[in-house]
Amino acid sequence: MRLLDLLFGARLANRDYGERKIGAFEGLPAMGLDGLGSSAYGPEAALAILIPLGAAGSGYIQAIMAPIIALLMILFVSYWQTIRAYPNNGGSYIVTKENLGTNVSLLAAAALMIDYVLNVAVGISAGIGALVSAVPVLQPYILPLCLGVLVLVTAVNLRGTLDAGRAFAAPTYVFIACFVVVIAIGVAKAILAGGHPSPVSPPPAPPPATETLSWWLLARAFASGCTAMTGVEAVSNGMSAFREPPVKYGHRTLGAIVVTLAVLLAGVAYLTNAYHITAMDQTQSGYRSVLSQLASAVIGENVFYYVAIGSLLSVLVLSANTSFVDFPRLCRMVAEDGFLPKPFAIAGRRLVFSAGILYLAATSGALLFAFGGITDRLIPLFAIGAFLTFTLSQTGMAVHWRASRQKGEAPRAVRLHFLINAIGAAATGLALIVIILAKFVEGAWITILVIPCVIGLLIGINRYYRWIEKEICDPEPLKLDRETAPIILIPIEDWDKLTAKALRLALTLSPDVIAIHLTHLSGPEAKEHEKSLRAHWRRGVEEPAEAAGDAPPRLMILQAQYRAIHEPVLKLAGELEQKFAGRRIAVLIPEVVKRHWYQHLLHAGYADHLRRQLLREGDSHLIVIDVPWRL
Amino acid sequence: MRLLDLLFGARLANRDYGERKIGAFEGLPAMGLDGLGSSAYGPEAALAILIPLGAAGSGYIQAIMAPIIALLMILFVSYWQTIRAYPNNGGSYIVTKENLGTNVSLLAAAALMIDYVLNVAVGISAGIGALVSAVPVLQPYILPLCLGVLVLVTAVNLRGTLDAGRAFAAPTYVFIACFVVVIAIGVAKAILAGGHPSPVSPPPAPPPATETLSWWLLARAFASGCTAMTGVEAVSNGMSAFREPPVKYGHRTLGAIVVTLAVLLAGVAYLTNAYHITAMDQTQSGYRSVLSQLASAVIGENVFYYVAIGSLLSVLVLSANTSFVDFPRLCRMVAEDGFLPKPFAIAGRRLVFSAGILYLAATSGALLFAFGGITDRLIPLFAIGAFLTFTLSQTGMAVHWRASRQKGEAPRAVRLHFLINAIGAAATGLALIVIILAKFVEGAWITILVIPCVIGLLIGINRYYRWIEKEICDPEPLKLDRETAPIILIPIEDWDKLTAKALRLALTLSPDVIAIHLTHLSGPEAKEHEKSLRAHWRRGVEEPAEAAGDAPPRLMILQAQYRAIHEPVLKLAGELEQKFAGRRIAVLIPEVVKRHWYQHLLHAGYADHLRRQLLREGDSHLIVIDVPWRL
Repeated sequence: MRLLDLLFGARLANRDYGERKIGAFEGLPAMGLDGLGSSAYGPEAALAILIPLGAAGSGYIQAIMAPIIALLMILFVSYWQTIRAYPNNGGSYIVTKENLGTNVSLLAAAALMIDYVLNVAVGISAGIGALVSAVPVLQPYILPLCLGVLVLVTAVNLRGTLDAGRAFAAPTYVFIACFVVVIAIGVAKAILAGGHPSPVSPPPAPPPATETLSWWLLARAFASGCTAMTGVEAVSNGMSAFREPPVKYGHRTLGAIVVTLAVLLAGVAYLTNAYHITAMDQTQSGYRSVLSQLASAVIGENVFYYVAIGSLLSVLVLSANTSFVDFPRLCRMVAEDGFLPKPFAIAGRRLVFSAGILYLAATSGALLFAFGGITDRLIPLFAIGAFLTFTLSQTGMAVHWRASRQKGEAPRAVRLHFLINAIGAAATGLALIVIILAKFVEGAWITILVIPCVIGLLIGINRYYRWIEKEICDPEPLKLDRETAPIILIPIEDWDKLTAKALRLALTLSPDVIAIHLTHLSGPEAKEHEKSLRAHWRRGVEEPAEAAGDAPPRLMILQAQYRAIHEPVLKLAGELEQKFAGRRIAVLIPEVVKRHWYQHLLHAGYADHLRRQLLREGDSHLIVIDVPWRL
Repeated sequence: MRLLDLLFGARLANRDYGERKIGAFEGLPAMGLDGLGSSAYGPEAALAILIPLGAAGSGYIQAIMAPIIALLMILFVSYWQTIRAYPNNGGSYIVTKENLGTNVSLLAAAALMIDYVLNVAVGISAGIGALVSAVPVLQPYILPLCLGVLVLVTAVNLRGTLDAGRAFAAPTYVFIACFVVVIAIGVAKAILAGGHPSPVSPPPAPPPATETLSWWLLARAFASGCTAMTGVEAVSNGMSAFREPPVKYGHRTLGAIVVTLAVLLAGVAYLTNAYHITAMDQTQSGYRSVLSQLASAVIGENVFYYVAIGSLLSVLVLSANTSFVDFPRLCRMVAEDGFLPKPFAIAGRRLVFSAGILYLAATSGALLFAFGGITDRLIPLFAIGAFLTFTLSQTGMAVHWRASRQKGEAPRAVRLHFLINAIGAAATGLALIVIILAKFVEGAWITILVIPCVIGLLIGINRYYRWIEKEICDPEPLKLDRETAPIILIPIEDWDKLTAKALRLALTLSPDVIAIHLTHLSGPEAKEHEKSLRAHWRRGVEEPAEAAGDAPPRLMILQAQYRAIHEPVLKLAGELEQKFAGRRIAVLIPEVVKRHWYQHLLHAGYADHLRRQLLREGDSHLIVIDVPWRL
């Protein structure tokens, strides 16, 4: 317990819930790292597709990023509305459940869950990849580094979302400050130089052109650049983390994330063009990321540059945190609706949903392990989930506004809301189609296969819970037709204090008590043992009972031919049930309480084994009574 | 269960015990492989010490092997006597316990246990080492091969000693036949050639001499050669495996082992000298074992040679089997005396002591793993245990005969017995001192350190059992001062069929029943939930009870501030105990029975958790009643 306290903090009472909620200051690091990290890999991914165009590549980046930023703004406005409309939880799951029905909400849930798991694996792996390309001596330690970060993020989130927000605040705000400054200086220099600034450290020469421009290439670059938008839905999914009034803090957090992201994306797009920066092949040695080239072109490679790149690496590595905040909250809602196992809906010792956190860590850890910490091949699977939930959520909101209008709420405002969400749905839906087409062969088909499997699993889980509910619910009013007390069987080892305590207890519960001694001896040894036990029984039990004028409890000696002690007990219980039709049988098990781990090695564990087998294999008339003996 | 049957055979009833016992045919492979394998590595170990003498080395082997064979004969006769005197179990542990007291018997037990574990690790590793030097392509697979053999031997022994004896009979008897033939041919050739036979394939040239003969070198060669004797005590330790009359089968098995071993040792000693065979450095490539050189010198490298070497490798690899037969039987006796955990004394599904087999496999597996399958450095630790038990056992027997003489049994025969065992004790004791001195620096000191630790552990375990026995034994005759039935607490989730069943049962056991609903809700949500539950309770429980004129069971709603449901229950139980001084409290837990593994994932496991915590942390007045609900 002490160790748990040290690692994860003292456990929290339900009444502490309010104090554990977060504001915008913690919200930005807790939920925003995925979105902010996107500013690094979105433009990079788009430029990487343009590599075959050679030096001309950087000329098209503005044309690609402009619709992406426009789409981002549409999403911003529409999620702003979603947060206000669903202040307790505006995640895609809830929005689709309320407006498009359970089936569509399961689609949203499956897409989100896959996306969150992939985000952890890909986020950590990409961050460590960037770290290793900056510090090549770390090359042999990619997997340990990835798993180390995973353990760190898991542990911090098990302490609570508030702790995570505080722990990761420093790198987040340093990153924002650094890159806003870099972009401001860069833009100022570019304008002063009439659009053609000279770099402090010139970027590497662009690669030779091998292809000419095609619509297909632009579509693929757009689809890749769209990864810059993932993370925008994070705030709406994590609304339950905010303190009162949640709408205010949700809006602030969402605003901070999207505005920062938009500024960074626009600045990066403008400056890569102005400084003629192109993406480099990651698999080649000497690789430098677009943001690293950009920062050194604008400010040169001084101390400030290293601080900026260091904070960028931290943000990339920690972008998995967004999943750790949202995934457990999503699973909790899905579990409360009976589509995921109940444990996902139980708050842990720190009032976060530990089962979800641990499941996320285990699954993404397994992915990292399976791919050796290099998850490039998972990236194409990645954006589909995000854009699918964008589209579903927008569509759900559009339906929501139409329903409001029919209820007769302020028609003008509602029409505007409807329009914004409908445009959002159409735009993200279109982007989704482009992404699926552009990335289908690279692996997007896997996501499209996995989503129905996850939905099938959710439905199967729900069917199980519904079945149980049907089995146990709606009892008739209690029948009080005085049933007789059960017959009590007591497996004993010897006539000792355990047996005496068990017998005394049994006699308060029922007049019909039978002690059972199980023997695996045979021949003369068995006879002698039986004789000695019966003599003890006579003196210890029968004589005092007869003196008190009671019928003494019987002692039966049964053979345990297969050393499995539950079998003779079950057999006897079955015979007694037949004889005394319908009467309950209680097996009373005396047991030494084990307080230390080594005691489990020193005792044969008969009591545990017997209880488990009786509960598993007995019929509905059999119950078990545990009588602990404390040493 | 089907899988278990397939792997380990159908489970056996106690009445099958007789049929599972073995005779001499199975006894030789089951217990003799350690001893027979010694014929390979005993002379080899002695010759390896003589390498610095160069070509002259093989000249001294007869001088070294002669006292070893004489010692072997003394041991033979004295174990022959031991078996007759202790027909049920003549192991060193029993002999020392009966004649030298418990403390000395613990020394024997510790020495034997360490020896058996080492024998498995060293035996398998040496066997695989020989295999790899014969088939060098296997070099990279040493550890997997070692662990594979360990798993095989463990699995076969879990099926039973009879199965092990049958499974390993073929390689054992082929080995004996082959090498008896090789030695017979070799001796015949040597005699016909006047002591100087010419080899079919000449052995490699001896190494150059680098040292001259010294007493210290001879002593070390003798100490190393003594490993040829390990395994002689195996039969006496495994007597309980033999069918009636055990003395007959024990004598036959012991005779077969010792006579074969003596013939092989004498033959090898004679022929290595006659053919001028010297040991080769195992760490050099091109290494060939002494027996391999000898066989090819006598018969050349034909098919028969390969059969002989193949059977030799099998015997070496399987020599661990002796430990698997004896170690569990030793542990059983020690456990029955209360010096090892009880589970070691419980016969498993195949009537062998599975706990001992699994423990042996785990410990030696860990050693193999830790040393990467190459356990050369453990060999010096090895012979000490064996010679310590030889000495203790002989001493015990000597004391036994002296005691018999004082009881007045046939004085002449007894005096002879006494003399034989006394000489045996003195001789093996002397050898033990030589071994310790010769091998102290190489690692024998580790054994000397570990033995007291093991003895300490055994005594600690015994102290625990004695303490428990004192705590629970000798109860007074049963007191029948009609105690009142316990107050029954029932934690419920809702008013459903589980609750109804639990309530009906509880009311047959006691008139005082309280249902507890634990909530972690607060505020208006909690109020509403409570209202609904109380309404159900009113209709379902209170109204029918009042109609029947009974006092209805109460419903209490408690806060579980820390989600740990056992805490409020324990608190309430404590309060009730104080209020109704000394009255028992029974917590009745309704529980859905889980029959499939996935059900454990789908249920939160509250019932299990609650029971465990209540049994662990409750006081002696608290009992637990499990009411299973079968779906």
